[in-house]
Amino acid sequence: MKNSDGVEWAIHCCAMLASLPPENRLSKTKLAEFFELPEHYLAKIMQQLSHAELISSTRGAHGGYRLSKPAKEVSMLEIVQAIDGKKPFFRCSEIRQCGPSAVSKKLYPRPCSIARTMWKAEAAWQKELASVSLEDIWAQGVAEMPAEQLEKSAAWINELST
Amino acid sequence: MKNSDGVEWAIHCCAMLASLPPENRLSKTKLAEFFELPEHYLAKIMQQLSHAELISSTRGAHGGYRLSKPAKEVSMLEIVQAIDGKKPFFRCSEIRQCGPSAVSKKLYPRPCSIARTMWKAEAAWQKELASVSLEDIWAQGVAEMPAEQLEKSAAWINELST
Repeated sequence: MKNSDGVEWAIHCCAMLASLPPENRLSKTKLAEFFELPEHYLAKIMQQLSHAELISSTRGAHGGYRLSKPAKEVSMLEIVQAIDGKKPFFRCSEIRQCGPSAVSKKLYPRPCSIARTMWKAEAAWQKELASVSLEDIWAQGVAEMPAEQLEKSAAWINELST
Repeated sequence: MKNSDGVEWAIHCCAMLASLPPENRLSKTKLAEFFELPEHYLAKIMQQLSHAELISSTRGAHGGYRLSKPAKEVSMLEIVQAIDGKKPFFRCSEIRQCGPSAVSKKLYPRPCSIARTMWKAEAAWQKELASVSLEDIWAQGVAEMPAEQLEKSAAWINELST
């Protein structure tokens, strides 16, 4: 099992948008430049974030992306699911209802206990990611960022508005 | 993100092996018959379980698979990882170290906080699956199985030894 590579990109890009001064926007060209990502693939990721209503975009000279809501109201789970989807990891194909011992379908009122166990573990994963906000991620990222990188990032952001 | 289909097969097959009388074995042909699975693909799953030392196999007329250790000593996590592997779901490609703000690699002593958050969620998923044994799964399966299926299964298993 593996997250899409786009999950890492999406979280970093959202954290970058969270660090912009209010009303500032970033184009996908600029985001791609900042993280050295292929713009064509990044565009798809930004579309998925936009589809999940986590970011919004405007066209034009000062257009670009910004967060649709405050970073403290966006959870990591929302970002991850915007890219990887919300389907359960475990898809039960009900093989317990196959073969020589199978009985009438109506005798299986509950999902299989194996599926329930797998889904319970997924719920624990979800709960953990739901408990962390984009603001937490952004704040932790800034707190741990090398001072020199923090300066360079700020300078890069400042240049956008000039 | 999605578990391999083989995860469902592996757990059901292990639970089936857990229900055999001591020293009995089941061939892949019989397991495939019991769950209506394609024998060729099931063989690959059984190989993975064998490679993880969860089951062992013997050749010959009375050969086949059996569990390598008691069902209470096998966790769901072990079975799932035998099929899907042990790699983290989230693979960090360190994009924080890219682009115009990047600084010397030695200034990043810890993994990125985004990766740590993702891995913490995976640890919660693992903990949940590690807390459930194959014996738990087997017992719950039997407890919830329609009575008619329980009878048919027992008859099918009895026939193996005759």
